[in-house]
Amino acid sequence: MAHTLVQKVLQKHTDQQITEAGQIVQCNISLALANDITAPLAIKSFRAMGAKKVFDKDRVALVMDHFTPQKDIESAIQVKGVREFAEEQNITHYYEGGDCGVEHALLPELGLVGPGDIVVGADSHTCTYGGLGAFATGLGSTDVAGAMALGSTWFKVPPTIKVEYSGTMPAYVGAKDLILKLIGEIGVAGALYKALEFGGPVVDALDVEGRMCIANMAIEAGGKCGLFPVDEKTIAYTSARGRNDSPMTADAGAVYERVVRFDVSGMSPQIACPHLPENVKPVEDVKNVRVNQVVVGSCTNGRISDLREAAAIFKGRKVAKHVRAIILPATPGIWKQALKEGLIETFMDAGCIVGPATCGPCLGGHMGILADGEVAIATTNRNFRGRMGSLESEVYLSSPCVAAASAIAGEIADPRKL
Amino acid sequence: MAHTLVQKVLQKHTDQQITEAGQIVQCNISLALANDITAPLAIKSFRAMGAKKVFDKDRVALVMDHFTPQKDIESAIQVKGVREFAEEQNITHYYEGGDCGVEHALLPELGLVGPGDIVVGADSHTCTYGGLGAFATGLGSTDVAGAMALGSTWFKVPPTIKVEYSGTMPAYVGAKDLILKLIGEIGVAGALYKALEFGGPVVDALDVEGRMCIANMAIEAGGKCGLFPVDEKTIAYTSARGRNDSPMTADAGAVYERVVRFDVSGMSPQIACPHLPENVKPVEDVKNVRVNQVVVGSCTNGRISDLREAAAIFKGRKVAKHVRAIILPATPGIWKQALKEGLIETFMDAGCIVGPATCGPCLGGHMGILADGEVAIATTNRNFRGRMGSLESEVYLSSPCVAAASAIAGEIADPRKL
Repeated sequence: MAHTLVQKVLQKHTDQQITEAGQIVQCNISLALANDITAPLAIKSFRAMGAKKVFDKDRVALVMDHFTPQKDIESAIQVKGVREFAEEQNITHYYEGGDCGVEHALLPELGLVGPGDIVVGADSHTCTYGGLGAFATGLGSTDVAGAMALGSTWFKVPPTIKVEYSGTMPAYVGAKDLILKLIGEIGVAGALYKALEFGGPVVDALDVEGRMCIANMAIEAGGKCGLFPVDEKTIAYTSARGRNDSPMTADAGAVYERVVRFDVSGMSPQIACPHLPENVKPVEDVKNVRVNQVVVGSCTNGRISDLREAAAIFKGRKVAKHVRAIILPATPGIWKQALKEGLIETFMDAGCIVGPATCGPCLGGHMGILADGEVAIATTNRNFRGRMGSLESEVYLSSPCVAAASAIAGEIADPRKL
Repeated sequence: MAHTLVQKVLQKHTDQQITEAGQIVQCNISLALANDITAPLAIKSFRAMGAKKVFDKDRVALVMDHFTPQKDIESAIQVKGVREFAEEQNITHYYEGGDCGVEHALLPELGLVGPGDIVVGADSHTCTYGGLGAFATGLGSTDVAGAMALGSTWFKVPPTIKVEYSGTMPAYVGAKDLILKLIGEIGVAGALYKALEFGGPVVDALDVEGRMCIANMAIEAGGKCGLFPVDEKTIAYTSARGRNDSPMTADAGAVYERVVRFDVSGMSPQIACPHLPENVKPVEDVKNVRVNQVVVGSCTNGRISDLREAAAIFKGRKVAKHVRAIILPATPGIWKQALKEGLIETFMDAGCIVGPATCGPCLGGHMGILADGEVAIATTNRNFRGRMGSLESEVYLSSPCVAAASAIAGEIADPRKL
């Protein structure tokens, strides 16, 4: 039986024979994840279902990243409750303070997720780990509670859409542009409950961080997951983090529902305009949009390669007076690496605000919320109405270099023209 | 007529002859200040009184420091309103983004306040500038609105308490300990509507930042202001910031209501225990207090000398696993200096969280709020019940080195014993 990538991973975790999309399979899981918004709900469900112990104290991760450092009394109380649960259950991977970062950047960095894993998280961007060849997906808090208790859960095997990128990547175009382009083409429901399997020479050439950026936004096309083949780059990344993984590709003859092909040659940097990630335009078509705020960070684009890309633009330039340019390295490890490389200094010299490793404004949490009528461009993943603050604010999504160029210009700007 | 320091400054700003405490005098002002909490109220009053233009667009400072980067929609809307007022009035000193810092650290750094000035601010810690020999005091937002419109306001000349520190400063004892010791002695109403005038050989030896730390907390003893003589250190500080000031001391024969004297020799680091700044004990008497959070920052102790003091403790050590240690340099200038000196690296290597220049948790704003039952030690200025979050949380106040030692130990600790 020839398997797509998602079928291949699921097969590793079940005794049932996977033969086709649509099957219901019970799988053991590698890791269950929740954060400071969802863990309190998961814990409540965990108690309600009469569970006493998590299935494995080393395979539950609780990452307090959305409203920390604690934004207000309510969020502090949420975190406190999770901390007490983690202490009670002796959870190894509880993160809250100086060791905490944005969950989907932190867990790969720590080697807690990788090729062939099944990761279920009470957070929609759990799909990020597909960049490493994991089947990783967001579930509701109640389902994650069940997985935390049992160490297994069920899935309907998703059909797979194959996405192939070929051609020559232009300057100032990167992973974020590739995924925005796809979402623009197939729409926010274009991959509803389907696996997106990425491939082609452009993907082969992408670094692991770029792949995680793309997998991260699979959910913005409705995808159940986004998956990349596991190659020597993946293995180098995960072995440096203490794992022992093997290469993995889809089988020849695997059945795809559809194949979508892009030639990236001559492609422009892409922008998702308000209020949906599918409202994608090339940067040159987005004119005269003055911005109040620029955000570089999040589980989508808060990694070291993203900070390097932004810093290359900020270097020797100044943020426009009316713009607050907020840089949030996604983990303490990334923060320290950026410090060592002089990127933090570049950001500060340019007049940016450098904050801690938090999800911050991405979800309208804190650290950069928009008032009525304010406009932001952000390297984050969603621009739904009100996502970053007021219902009357607007968010544009872009790559780090477009965001940085816009901070300098004071309006949405094309980094190719700086 | 022999004048105390406060009388001397007031006299410079009025045509009336100042002869005694209790007189009502109308004075022109040097600068009016408001922040993101108080400026919206001041602007509302400014409109209500029919004012059209601020008295001088270069002598009104609007510093958006309490809830920025914007914490939530409400604070974003507050800031937006102030920004629009600043644009309408063409205010020179409006700060919101990457150029913004904690107001009472920022204005001295920019040379906007200094010796002999009268500064009125809609913030109680406006008294900070007394460290430079200004008469600086907090007023309600409505009074600041009047001052913004007229460029003058009235004061009742406060009686003066002279505070003299002598002896030899022990290691690990600094300015914060001196002011905590005073407040512990005279109580939170001990200087109610009085000027505190600091002097003595220990004060002469203090650097300007230490003097601002002490003046900052004059209000915690109820003081109308806290004032230091202007000496060559002050002049060096302000002339480096583009000002042209002259030395100033109280006149021989000036009338003091009371003189309080301390011999600092053998003094211990001081801690203000919950829930009042007057509940002061030497650190060795505060035992077995486990802390969840440590904060180094604020208008009291967020300056470069404070960060150096904390970094000297953090260097080569690690924050206790259960502690969130939050470092908030008070201005972008301080932040960049700390970066240059390697202090930021020291904090990150120790496992601290480094945040932007914001008031943050000091006032229960954001970036480190306490849940029920949580305990913090902070270099801030107030430990009133609920000040940093829940009504059931506790805040201890200390110097930066005590706070840092406590972060390492995981409980309130004596830096002399590390």
